[in-house]
Amino acid sequence: MSAVDIGHVHVTPAVLADGRELFYFDDPSTATDRRDIVDQRPLPPAMASSTVRFDRLLGEWVAIAGHRQSRTYLPPDDECPLCPSRSGHQSEIPAHDYDVVVFENRFPSFASPSELDPENSPDGNGFPDTTGFAERTGFAGSIGLPDSFLSRPGVGRCEVVCFTSDHDAAFSSLSPTRVRTVIEAWVARSEALAAIPEVEQVFCFENRGEEIGVTLSHPHGQIYGYPFVTPRTAQMLDSARTHLAATGRNLFADVLDAELRSGERIVASNEHWTAFVPFAARWPLEVHLYPNRQVPDLPSLTDTEREQLAAIYLDVLRRMERVHQDSLPYIAAWHQAPVRIDRDLAYLHLELFSIRRAPGKLKYLAGSESAMGAFVNDVLPEEAARRMREVTS
Amino acid sequence: MSAVDIGHVHVTPAVLADGRELFYFDDPSTATDRRDIVDQRPLPPAMASSTVRFDRLLGEWVAIAGHRQSRTYLPPDDECPLCPSRSGHQSEIPAHDYDVVVFENRFPSFASPSELDPENSPDGNGFPDTTGFAERTGFAGSIGLPDSFLSRPGVGRCEVVCFTSDHDAAFSSLSPTRVRTVIEAWVARSEALAAIPEVEQVFCFENRGEEIGVTLSHPHGQIYGYPFVTPRTAQMLDSARTHLAATGRNLFADVLDAELRSGERIVASNEHWTAFVPFAARWPLEVHLYPNRQVPDLPSLTDTEREQLAAIYLDVLRRMERVHQDSLPYIAAWHQAPVRIDRDLAYLHLELFSIRRAPGKLKYLAGSESAMGAFVNDVLPEEAARRMREVTS
Repeated sequence: MSAVDIGHVHVTPAVLADGRELFYFDDPSTATDRRDIVDQRPLPPAMASSTVRFDRLLGEWVAIAGHRQSRTYLPPDDECPLCPSRSGHQSEIPAHDYDVVVFENRFPSFASPSELDPENSPDGNGFPDTTGFAERTGFAGSIGLPDSFLSRPGVGRCEVVCFTSDHDAAFSSLSPTRVRTVIEAWVARSEALAAIPEVEQVFCFENRGEEIGVTLSHPHGQIYGYPFVTPRTAQMLDSARTHLAATGRNLFADVLDAELRSGERIVASNEHWTAFVPFAARWPLEVHLYPNRQVPDLPSLTDTEREQLAAIYLDVLRRMERVHQDSLPYIAAWHQAPVRIDRDLAYLHLELFSIRRAPGKLKYLAGSESAMGAFVNDVLPEEAARRMREVTS
Repeated sequence: MSAVDIGHVHVTPAVLADGRELFYFDDPSTATDRRDIVDQRPLPPAMASSTVRFDRLLGEWVAIAGHRQSRTYLPPDDECPLCPSRSGHQSEIPAHDYDVVVFENRFPSFASPSELDPENSPDGNGFPDTTGFAERTGFAGSIGLPDSFLSRPGVGRCEVVCFTSDHDAAFSSLSPTRVRTVIEAWVARSEALAAIPEVEQVFCFENRGEEIGVTLSHPHGQIYGYPFVTPRTAQMLDSARTHLAATGRNLFADVLDAELRSGERIVASNEHWTAFVPFAARWPLEVHLYPNRQVPDLPSLTDTEREQLAAIYLDVLRRMERVHQDSLPYIAAWHQAPVRIDRDLAYLHLELFSIRRAPGKLKYLAGSESAMGAFVNDVLPEEAARRMREVTS
């Protein structure tokens, strides 16, 4: 395999000892002649057990992935599987240094058919689709309303994205150049995962902070290729469909337009991007980042839009971090259009939110949120926006 | 005010120093002649700021309750506001002992119109309802699809339910007699809250464990009277509506029937109740408890059903606790029919779930769950059911 240049970065593919794929994405100025070190760990073949089961009450798919119970959990710093390999410690990355690297998760929630353990990933009991069920749920199979228990193998893809080889860094401390490389990695992998026949939606995200359940502290994100359109995306697209029929306009564009006209909740903006606290924010610190033009996904962004994204993403993240004199556990979630359906209704955007509600205090999802889906936010969105505007990034 | 007997319990109403209501629910054998102690704390009048805002993308209401930031947070044991009052410590309960007590939350997510701070609880910008919006969202107002920002005062009711005066007890350590008293309190307060004109759904629940964000460790639950039908309930009722139209049958009854026929995921049962792990469980330990006959809510249960509920609730909770040799943070959520709509579609049931996935390990809602609504469960539901069946309660 050999390196290729896409956009601003060099991409070099590799294969790990157990057959998983890995891709180096190098900054423009990085020499890429040391990307051929062979992973020599004695790993058993990658094998996952995953099924997706249909919850008839909520009309949603749930993934059951039993093998993940044994995944690596808060290892000591000198055994970090995301640091570069060195003498005496062979990590997941068979290189002495790297810029950005993407590889298949060893403990995936979804996996390719060849990696799925057939015993624990039974075939589903499909039904002929006479009810529009597949279309409504975004599940690309010939299935209908099930009599009782509907399941399918959890085919899909889960990848890890390391943002830097520096174990103690954070996304917010990356250079704009590096963020740009991360963006190119998201773009390339979004395209690659969308090309997998079973994948219906690609989700690039970062979970940050032990308080949010992150089991590895090395700065990294993840990319999921789901075998269904996710519940929240399906729900938003339903709203957008209703809105389009009623007004002839795109709902997301109208939301952005209303926020721009109001101005009260705007946090930051540049020529191509707008960051605002949503009017009905669910989280104490929550920022939505929209491109000013409707595009379905990250690959659709122009060169200039990607350049400006790197700048405003860092600006917003640093503002969020500075509101409280405390760590910022957060989730950064890229909402992209489904791969096959409703691409005209969708509108690429980033939802960034933190469970930090005050120094030393976290927002938890308890009964009202977790059981009823009814969020109670203790922070006025206009006040959150004001505080993020006032701190210097 | 004077005590009344309802069912098996004595109920004595009282009023706290700031005007909030309180109700003593006493076990049948308890003497109730000391329920007239006056709350002499110098409390300012209860005042809450709460609005509900409409999220146009998800089509859901979100409560914004800014005043809750200052609520009591993990106080030392000797300042517990839920313990009985004693010399030198005046708690929320002006009695030297109690069995079960219910009172209005001092930091409510929703409050009565007289308690809402008008400055921070603006009137909404209503629209004539020409789109069925009110019906679809369960919001009982004359409003339509908003142009931009729709909000309403957060009128409703939030109550605290103390299960015992023993600070160090837990629901699972209560006697069946006491659980029966708690059930009568839920029934009585469900009826009372349903009678509030603005309340659309009554939710009885318990959050247990600091890991789940519980800010007071004294054994207690809560009751919310929401000014809207909660998102998850609306979603289930939509599924039930579709199912009824397609099959002529009740969806919840069919789910229970399928679980009984399969048997694989049954955890416990008695003549009137069945407890099972749902086929598409989202949580590592999750049990749904259904009455064997379709009823809309807790007040509809017969005397015998309430009696058997006390027994099986304790049985299931104790089984969940014994699966792992560690604390059991959990949420217990009563799904009741909305007050005004879809009462024929709904089916009372309890959803009990824990974030404990292994000793020392918790399940967190991270990017996939919190941002996309796509749950990944690391535990096979059949395995969880087997483990709960095998431990002795």
